[in-house]
Amino acid sequence: MAFKIGIMGASGYTGAELIRLLALHPKIEIKILTGERQAGKNIGEVFSHLGGLNLPKLCRMEEVAWDKLDGVFCCLPHGNAQLVIRDLPSQLKIVDLSADYRIKDPALYEQIYGHAHVAPQLQKEAIYGLTEHYRVSVAKARIVANPGCYPTAAELPLWPLLKARLIDPNQIIIDAASGMSGAGRDPKLGTIFSEVSENFSAYGISNHRHAPEIEQELSLAAGQEIKISFTPHLVPMIRGILATIYVKMGSGVKIDDLRQTLMSAYQEESFVRIVPQPPSTKDVKGSNFCHISLHEDRREGSAIIVSAIDNLIKGASGQAIQNFNVMMGWKEHLGLQTLSFAP
Amino acid sequence: MAFKIGIMGASGYTGAELIRLLALHPKIEIKILTGERQAGKNIGEVFSHLGGLNLPKLCRMEEVAWDKLDGVFCCLPHGNAQLVIRDLPSQLKIVDLSADYRIKDPALYEQIYGHAHVAPQLQKEAIYGLTEHYRVSVAKARIVANPGCYPTAAELPLWPLLKARLIDPNQIIIDAASGMSGAGRDPKLGTIFSEVSENFSAYGISNHRHAPEIEQELSLAAGQEIKISFTPHLVPMIRGILATIYVKMGSGVKIDDLRQTLMSAYQEESFVRIVPQPPSTKDVKGSNFCHISLHEDRREGSAIIVSAIDNLIKGASGQAIQNFNVMMGWKEHLGLQTLSFAP
Amino acid sequence: MAFKIGIMGASGYTGAELIRLLALHPKIEIKILTGERQAGKNIGEVFSHLGGLNLPKLCRMEEVAWDKLDGVFCCLPHGNAQLVIRDLPSQLKIVDLSADYRIKDPALYEQIYGHAHVAPQLQKEAIYGLTEHYRVSVAKARIVANPGCYPTAAELPLWPLLKARLIDPNQIIIDAASGMSGAGRDPKLGTIFSEVSENFSAYGISNHRHAPEIEQELSLAAGQEIKISFTPHLVPMIRGILATIYVKMGSGVKIDDLRQTLMSAYQEESFVRIVPQPPSTKDVKGSNFCHISLHEDRREGSAIIVSAIDNLIKGASGQAIQNFNVMMGWKEHLGLQTLSFAP
Amino acid sequence: MAFKIGIMGASGYTGAELIRLLALHPKIEIKILTGERQAGKNIGEVFSHLGGLNLPKLCRMEEVAWDKLDGVFCCLPHGNAQLVIRDLPSQLKIVDLSADYRIKDPALYEQIYGHAHVAPQLQKEAIYGLTEHYRVSVAKARIVANPGCYPTAAELPLWPLLKARLIDPNQIIIDAASGMSGAGRDPKLGTIFSEVSENFSAYGISNHRHAPEIEQELSLAAGQEIKISFTPHLVPMIRGILATIYVKMGSGVKIDDLRQTLMSAYQEESFVRIVPQPPSTKDVKGSNFCHISLHEDRREGSAIIVSAIDNLIKGASGQAIQNFNVMMGWKEHLGLQTLSFAP
Repeated sequence: MAFKIGIMGASGYTGAELIRLLALHPKIEIKILTGERQAGKNIGEVFSHLGGLNLPKLCRMEEVAWDKLDGVFCCLPHGNAQLVIRDLPSQLKIVDLSADYRIKDPALYEQIYGHAHVAPQLQKEAIYGLTEHYRVSVAKARIVANPGCYPTAAELPLWPLLKARLIDPNQIIIDAASGMSGAGRDPKLGTIFSEVSENFSAYGISNHRHAPEIEQELSLAAGQEIKISFTPHLVPMIRGILATIYVKMGSGVKIDDLRQTLMSAYQEESFVRIVPQPPSTKDVKGSNFCHISLHEDRREGSAIIVSAIDNLIKGASGQAIQNFNVMMGWKEHLGLQTLSFAP
Repeated sequence: MAFKIGIMGASGYTGAELIRLLALHPKIEIKILTGERQAGKNIGEVFSHLGGLNLPKLCRMEEVAWDKLDGVFCCLPHGNAQLVIRDLPSQLKIVDLSADYRIKDPALYEQIYGHAHVAPQLQKEAIYGLTEHYRVSVAKARIVANPGCYPTAAELPLWPLLKARLIDPNQIIIDAASGMSGAGRDPKLGTIFSEVSENFSAYGISNHRHAPEIEQELSLAAGQEIKISFTPHLVPMIRGILATIYVKMGSGVKIDDLRQTLMSAYQEESFVRIVPQPPSTKDVKGSNFCHISLHEDRREGSAIIVSAIDNLIKGASGQAIQNFNVMMGWKEHLGLQTLSFAP
Repeated sequence: MAFKIGIMGASGYTGAELIRLLALHPKIEIKILTGERQAGKNIGEVFSHLGGLNLPKLCRMEEVAWDKLDGVFCCLPHGNAQLVIRDLPSQLKIVDLSADYRIKDPALYEQIYGHAHVAPQLQKEAIYGLTEHYRVSVAKARIVANPGCYPTAAELPLWPLLKARLIDPNQIIIDAASGMSGAGRDPKLGTIFSEVSENFSAYGISNHRHAPEIEQELSLAAGQEIKISFTPHLVPMIRGILATIYVKMGSGVKIDDLRQTLMSAYQEESFVRIVPQPPSTKDVKGSNFCHISLHEDRREGSAIIVSAIDNLIKGASGQAIQNFNVMMGWKEHLGLQTLSFAP
Repeated sequence: MAFKIGIMGASGYTGAELIRLLALHPKIEIKILTGERQAGKNIGEVFSHLGGLNLPKLCRMEEVAWDKLDGVFCCLPHGNAQLVIRDLPSQLKIVDLSADYRIKDPALYEQIYGHAHVAPQLQKEAIYGLTEHYRVSVAKARIVANPGCYPTAAELPLWPLLKARLIDPNQIIIDAASGMSGAGRDPKLGTIFSEVSENFSAYGISNHRHAPEIEQELSLAAGQEIKISFTPHLVPMIRGILATIYVKMGSGVKIDDLRQTLMSAYQEESFVRIVPQPPSTKDVKGSNFCHISLHEDRREGSAIIVSAIDNLIKGASGQAIQNFNVMMGWKEHLGLQTLSFAP
C-alpha cells in the first residue's frame, strides 16, 4: 500500500523535482501539493513538463488535512518553513529542504539569519540529513534537515578526511560553482537569461549562508572549531554544482592516503563514486550521484579535490527522497534509479 | 601614413579578433593575412562577421613579401611560431601571441614542451608583454611575447602584492575559469556545443602549461622561486576569464593594504580598474579592461581577489595591440577604445 | 528471460541514448556494443555519464557473434548502414536509425544520395517506422526504418489532416528548428560551442535530405504526389525539435475540424498529445512525447500547427525502442516511461 | 559643438545600448538620463558594463530641464511614451523607440492596445522611421517612431518586392525568432535563465502586436490592404532576430528577379546587404546591418527569404541613431561604424 505524502511549496524547482522523481517511486503516493500563490491550479499549468501526471491540484496550506498524510516534504522558503513545521502533527515524517533546521547552535542561527529560531526544541531534534554521514540517526528521525547544495558537495569529500586527521582543518578552501536553478524560480534581475548567459561571476564571497553550515559539519568531523574559505560562483547553465577544494595534507600524508580513505568511506555507498578523472557536472546531471576526484597540487603537501553533484537532486530533492527512504526503512535508492542525463 | 602589418595565422579566433580591432586602428593597415589551410579565401568566407571589410585574401606564408611590412602579429600554434619568427627579417616589429617566447629558462621550456627551443637567442631577446609590468622594455623591444590569458588575469593582481611583500608567496591559489573561445577554433570533441553546454568542469589540474608561465612572473615579482596552485575550469560561454585567487597576507597586513597597493600600482593605467564589487566576465566582455576586486576571507589573515578579463582581448589580441602601440611609441589605447559589450 | 540485443555504432548520440533508455528496459539485455574507432573501450570512457553501467566493452563489427543476438539497433552512418544490414542473418529483428531504408523509391533514393542502394530488396521489405502510422506493419516487420527527427515532428500532425482531406496538400510550409545534438557527435566547425552559442541560423534551405522523406509520407497520406516547403534552423540548445507548420484549410474547414481530427487520430496513443498552448521543446525534453497545438492564422482559411519532440528520443532512440516493442509484441511503452526533464 | 540629448527610460536594454553607441558618437553629448525607479544612481550601478563612462546620474523625468536639450531618445514603455512625448517642448527632435507612434490608424491603434491614443495629432505627425524606406520624410521630421525589431527584419526584404509587384501580397508568411533581450530587462518567469536555456518555443501566434505594424507597412508598399501570417519564437540567446519568410512569386517571376530588385533597392545603402548564403544572427551581432538572402523553394513559384538583424541595434537603438543622424542632416553612419561582434 502506498505511503501518502504532501509537498509543501510545490511550485518551486525543488518541488517540481520531487514530483518528477516521486512519480516513479514505487511506495509513495503524492496526495497534497501546496502553493499559496498558485492554489487552484493543476501542476501542469505551473510546470508544463509535468502536465501529463495524475496529481492533486495545488492548494493552500490551510486546506490540508494533515491527518490523512504519512509524511511531508517541505520546500518552503527559509523562515517560513520553521513556522509551518512547528505546527505539524507529530505523526508526520518530515524532510525539510529549507535551511531552517540545519544550524544546530541557536546563537549562530540568530547571528546568520538575524532572528531567533521559532522552534528551538525542534531545531535540536532535527537530524542533519547528509545521508551518508548520518544514516543511523536519519533512520530514527522524525524531522530531517536536508543539507544545502554547496554543503553536500563540500562535506562528502572533506568529512572522512577530517575524521581521519589527514588534512589541516585550518587550511580548507572551497571554490564552488552552481547552475542557475540554485537561485530558484522567482524572477530576479540577476537570474534573467540576458544577464546570466555569457557571464561568469563570484558572489556572496565570505558571507554566503552555506559557509556556516559547512563549518558546522566540518568542525564536527575535525573535532575542533574551524573556519573555511568559501567562494560560490554562478555558471550559465541550469543544473549542477562543482566544488574545487584545496587542502593541505598532514605531515607525511600522500594523495593516495586521501584517495584510499574516501574509497573506504564510501565503498558501500550507492551514490558516491571516487573517479580517476576530474568529474564534470554533466556526468551527474539528472542523477543522485556525487562524483569525487583527487589530484596532486603543484605545491608539495597540498592536494586538490573536485566533487560534482546535480544541485536539484543530490543537492536537494534526490537527497530528500534518499533520507525519506532511510526514515521509512526502505531501500535507499527507491525512486532514485535514474541514470545521468546527457548530452 | 599607415603602418603596414601582417597577421600570421589569421584564421583562428585571436587572428579574427586582431582583424576586428585593427580595422578601427587609425595608424595601422592590414596588408597580409596568412592561413595555410584557407589560403586563397576572402576572410569573409572564413569568418562571416568580417565579410564587409576591404582586406587582402588569405595567403600562404611562403607567398609573403616580408620586406613590404613594418610589423607582424603572429597567431600561429605553439612550436610553429618559434620557427617562423626565427626566420623573419630583423626590421620587423613582432608580437607573438603563442606561448613560444614566454618562458625564459631554456631548461624549463624543454621540460614543459618536450623539445628544445629552436631559437634560444630570440627566446632570450623577447620581452614578456604584460604591458603594465614591462612597458619600458616593451617600448624598446623588437619581439614581444604576448602573455597567456590565464597569466594576464592572475599576474595583474598578484605582481604588485608580491613586489610589496604583502602576501605569502608560498600560499597562492589561483582558481580560474574560461570561456570556450580559449580552446580555439579547431573542432574537438571537448569543444562541441552538445558536450560543453550545460556543463562545468575542471581540467589540466596542476599541469596546465600556463602554470609555469605564471610562476616565472610571480617569482620575479617575489624575488624568490615560487610554486602556485592553479586550476582552470571550462564555462559554457564564449568569452571571458575569471580568476578567484586565495592569498595569505603577511603578519599585520590588512585587506586595505592590498587594495591601496593595487590602486597605487594601477592608478595611471587605462585598462586596469580596482572595483568595489566582485567583477563578472560580462563587465569586461568586448573590452581591453581588467577589473579586480579584493575581499576579506572568513579565515583571518587571508584574502580573496577576483579578476576578470576578456580572454580574446586583454588576454590575447587586445593586449597584443596595446604592446604594439607601446613598441611604436603611439598612444597605448589606439584601436582599443571599445566599451564592454552587454547584454 | 531477457531478449539479447546489440547496438551497432554505439559511440554516437543516438547510441548513447539507446543505452541510457534500454538500461531500464525490463525485457532487454544489451549484449553487444560496436564502435570501430573506439573498440576495446568501456562505454564509460566514451560517455562519462554512462560510466556506472555494467555493459560489454565496445568491439568491432567483425567480432560480433550475430547468432547470439535476437535483435539489433543500427546507429551507423548513412551508406554504411545498408551494407551492414544487408549481411546480417535473417533471424535478427532490426531497427535501423539511419536514413538508408526510409526512402521507398529506388530512383528517388539514387537522386538524393548520389548512388544506387546496395540492397534494393531489403529497401522494399523495410517498414517505415513512424509507429503511430504503421503499427500493424511494424508488428510484422523484420526490418524497421526508423524515421528522421524532422519527419517525425512534421508527419505526426500532418498525416491525419491529409488523410481526412482537410488541408491543401500543395500549400504546406514546414519551418523547423533543432537542437545541436541532431548534428551528431563528430566535431565540426559548425558545431563547436563558440560558433553555435548566441547564434540562430537557417540551413539546408529547400535541399535538406529530410524533405523528400516527409514528401514521401505526406504523399501517401494525401493520395497524390506533393511538394512541401521545408526550412530547418539551428538553435543554441542541445535537444529538441520544434516544427511550426503553415497550412491552408479546405473550403469550409475550421480550425476545430483540424483539432478534432488530430484528437481522434491520437486519442488512444500514449505518446502524442494535442495541447491547448503552443508546446515548447522543454515540455518534451527527455521523453518520448510529441506535443501538438493548433492555431488560427491571421489570414482567413489558414492555420498554424506547432509540434515539439525530443530529437534524440521520439526523433530517434525512443521511437526505435517503441518500434522494437511493437515488433516483439510487448507493451509499447516499455523502457519509455520517462517524464520530461526540466528545468 | 556637441548636440545635447537626453535618454528617457535609460535603465532598460535599449537605453543601455543607446548609451554604449552614443558614447562613441562624434557629434552627440548625453546630458540627461532618466529612470524613475533608479533615480539618483550612476549608470554604472545599473549597468556594470557602462561603469567607466563619464555620464550624468539617472534622474526623474520631472527634474529634467528640457530647454537645455536639443534632442531626446525615448525608451519608455508603451502607453507611457505617448504621454511624455505629448508634453515635450516643440524644439526637441524626438526618436521614440516605443510602439506608441508607429500605428497610423487611430481605430486600429485602439483595437490593438485597448485604449485611445492620447496624442492623435502627434500620432499623425510622427514619421515611421524605417530609415531606408522613409529617409526623405525622416530628414524633415520632428518626431520619428522607430520601428519594432521584427517589423524591421520583415519589412526590409518585403517592401521593395511588394512595391515592384513581384510577390503575391496575400500569401506572405513570416516565421521569426528573437533573442531574449527583446523581452526587456524586467524580470519575468518567462525570461529567467532556467526556463529559457535549452528551450525553443513559439509565442504570440497570430496576435503579436508587431503583426499589425508589419501589415500597415506592407499594405502601403503593396497599395492594398493585406494580412500576413506572423509567428515569433524565442531562442536561448541574448541578441538577434532571424526572419524566415515564405512568399509566392507572381506569374513568370523568377528568384533572380527578386534578388535583382533587392540589390537595386539597397545598393546605395550602408546597412543592408544582400548575401549569397543564409545569414545567421551572429553575422550581424553588434552591428547595424541587416543581411538578406533569397532561395528557391521546393514548390515551384515560391521563394524563401532570410533576413537577420541585431534586435538591439538595427532593431532598436542603432536604427534610432541612424534616424537621428538623418534628422540632423549628418552622415547616416555616425556612431554606427561598429563591426559585428564574434565569436
